Amino acid sequence: MAMHLGRLSAGPCWRAARGCCGELRAWAPRSAAGRLCRPPGTAGPEQSRGLGHGPKTRGGPRLRTWLAAGLAGLAGLAAAAFGHVERAEMVRKSSGTQSPPPGKPEEEDDDLARRCSCFMALPVTDLRELRGRPGDMKTKMELLILETQAQVCQALAQVDGGARFSVDRWERKEGGGGISCVLQDGRVFEKAGVSISVVHGNLSEEAAKQMRSRGKILKTKDGKLPFSAMGVSSVIHPKNPHAPTIHFNYRYFEVEEADGNKQWWFGGGCDLTPTYLNQEDAVHFHRTLKEACDQHGPDLYPKFKKWCDDYFFIAHRGERRGIGGIFFDDLDSPSKEEVFHFVQSCAQAVIPSYIPLVKKHCDDSFTPQEKLWQQLRRGRYVEFNLLYDRGTKFGLFTPGSRIESILMSLPLTARWEYMHSPSENSKEAEILEVLRHPRDWVR
Amino acid sequence: MAMHLGRLSAGPCWRAARGCCGELRAWAPRSAAGRLCRPPGTAGPEQSRGLGHGPKTRGGPRLRTWLAAGLAGLAGLAAAAFGHVERAEMVRKSSGTQSPPPGKPEEEDDDLARRCSCFMALPVTDLRELRGRPGDMKTKMELLILETQAQVCQALAQVDGGARFSVDRWERKEGGGGISCVLQDGRVFEKAGVSISVVHGNLSEEAAKQMRSRGKILKTKDGKLPFSAMGVSSVIHPKNPHAPTIHFNYRYFEVEEADGNKQWWFGGGCDLTPTYLNQEDAVHFHRTLKEACDQHGPDLYPKFKKWCDDYFFIAHRGERRGIGGIFFDDLDSPSKEEVFHFVQSCAQAVIPSYIPLVKKHCDDSFTPQEKLWQQLRRGRYVEFNLLYDRGTKFGLFTPGSRIESILMSLPLTARWEYMHSPSENSKEAEILEVLRHPRDWVR
Repeated sequence: MAMHLGRLSAGPCWRAARGCCGELRAWAPRSAAGRLCRPPGTAGPEQSRGLGHGPKTRGGPRLRTWLAAGLAGLAGLAAAAFGHVERAEMVRKSSGTQSPPPGKPEEEDDDLARRCSCFMALPVTDLRELRGRPGDMKTKMELLILETQAQVCQALAQVDGGARFSVDRWERKEGGGGISCVLQDGRVFEKAGVSISVVHGNLSEEAAKQMRSRGKILKTKDGKLPFSAMGVSSVIHPKNPHAPTIHFNYRYFEVEEADGNKQWWFGGGCDLTPTYLNQEDAVHFHRTLKEACDQHGPDLYPKFKKWCDDYFFIAHRGERRGIGGIFFDDLDSPSKEEVFHFVQSCAQAVIPSYIPLVKKHCDDSFTPQEKLWQQLRRGRYVEFNLLYDRGTKFGLFTPGSRIESILMSLPLTARWEYMHSPSENSKEAEILEVLRHPRDWVR
Repeated sequence: MAMHLGRLSAGPCWRAARGCCGELRAWAPRSAAGRLCRPPGTAGPEQSRGLGHGPKTRGGPRLRTWLAAGLAGLAGLAAAAFGHVERAEMVRKSSGTQSPPPGKPEEEDDDLARRCSCFMALPVTDLRELRGRPGDMKTKMELLILETQAQVCQALAQVDGGARFSVDRWERKEGGGGISCVLQDGRVFEKAGVSISVVHGNLSEEAAKQMRSRGKILKTKDGKLPFSAMGVSSVIHPKNPHAPTIHFNYRYFEVEEADGNKQWWFGGGCDLTPTYLNQEDAVHFHRTLKEACDQHGPDLYPKFKKWCDDYFFIAHRGERRGIGGIFFDDLDSPSKEEVFHFVQSCAQAVIPSYIPLVKKHCDDSFTPQEKLWQQLRRGRYVEFNLLYDRGTKFGLFTPGSRIESILMSLPLTARWEYMHSPSENSKEAEILEVLRHPRDWVR
């Protein structure tokens, strides 16, 4: 099922990738996805509009959550990305986004080839198919997640210095596949996984029944319901206890009913898990995400920040997994293009929100006690992912899913001590307090 | 809620406990529970009779499984002990067990005081109450689990040499409490937890409703259903990768319906998780358990061995957690006394099945690669406990349960490597093969 593509270091391969991104910039104006290579944080003001969930769409939140967890599990998008059904209000504040003008076919071909040469591996979808539907959201999203994967891997490899990514390209028997890139036991990173998956097929009769039992009548054709799902998912655990862990995941779903009606929605998020609290870091991280959100509406960051705090909750501990970030699901308005631009802004914010923090702290000195506290917090990370994360659980319990891609989110090492309790006024108690009572880092 | 009783080492306290057990031997003939102090493996043939699940008892397997998971979670019995509803056939082959003759009250008082002085802490139930119902199964089982806890802790501390047990006596707001003993980062043991709990109260209206929705009509009184649950639960992780991990749990439940009818049943088991396969060890472990079972019927070991292989299955990996042992639940025939004697034999078998293996291997030399493989297997242990074990999950998701007692089953340290795969014909591949295809170790 999986094809191991060997290990890529930050050597010539990465230089080639960087060079390639230079090329991409010239190409960018013709394609929204191409804008990923624009220097981060410079997204134009033209994308400032409200986003929400279409309240009138058939299927509704339950179907969507089920699909989000289900498809993600199957595809190995997992990590920590589904659930908490909320519906943002639909606030269309302005409209002005236009579809990119269709490029000449031969130029598109050249562009696609150039873009592909940056990726960690060839797209999951056949290039001829991608060329055949250049303006389709499935094409744009697949290119976005591939570029995000490549750019994040590149940035991580640069920071790590000697690290090597293993690259596995795998196929899903039922349709589609993925590319899992993992850097393990490097100089800076204990474990960094960046995985993409692009899957499609038919929802099973069982799945359709389950939806009917939830009150949803879906127009299946001969009991079938075609779907497409794709996403990028990543968890990055540095070695130094003063460098925080990050997780992000951005995904897109389509379900096609018998009458040809397509339901679509986006989901995603990005959250930070530091071992120790560094206020400056927390503010930088949240501010970067807020700036990405604010380009698309002032209500998005506050709403998605709270959603993140609510989702990453380790109930039996009464703590959040980390200091949060943003989390959203079921995002299907005001338009496919506009939500895509929002998701693109979020994906672009990953590197500037996180890489400066790792660079700042990866060579900090630390004590054995600080390393131990990091390992205990890693244990809590494992508890959240195995006990609460819906995508992880669904994936593990679904026959045929790629276990290694789902569990790459787990840290290399973790620790559980009986009755460990930080002493009062310690740095360990300080972060626990924040995990128990989330703060607003930017306003 | 919890009272920390300090740390007990294998010093004078242990000598006192051992001396005390010498006293107990003289006392043993008057009490079945007292026989625990008989040298292990010498249980008499008089207990040879069949055991099963009473098919006519109200409540049935679903109720029982629900209760097993539920009460265990609340009480911190958790670890790995519930599920897999099976009903053994009722085979009453002979009958001859008699209730112990009632002792003189003042002698009972002396006996109880002597027995209590061996325990890690005073019984959970008030001594006056225990004295008031000497022949009651709740009394006998509470004393059995307290003695099992003390003897196992004693044996572990002796092997470890310098290790210290922390002893926490905790109370449950709703009724009852427990004693959790944990030895952490010792010379021989990475983490060894031996916990008992004795809880009682009323099943909630919600719980009663849930049972009704499952087709069970229980005679509640004003919506209440009194219950008692008690058990001993333990997971022991040695440091040396050639010394195996053991888990055991023995428990007793009572539910009283409005008409005074009491349903009761026992559950439990004991299983071994080696990092590397040692055939001699596997045979010794299983043979010791088989001998304990065979005293009570020839069909018990084969049935409960298979049940164990089925229960401790990490489905997403296609592997068992370890090389098995025995597992049973819902055991309620031929009589309370007879099942108690069976459970007692099983509890007595823990030390002789396990301690010789630890003594044999705790000073084995090992390579860094062997330690690493142990850590990866520890990761699988965590996966089973957090993803599959019903008692653990129910406990963690039930407000008010004692999290630290439930999670003491997790190893001190664990590791997850992406795409780790042992090379062919290696020792790592050898144990994996056994975990994928359980063997019969004794016939």
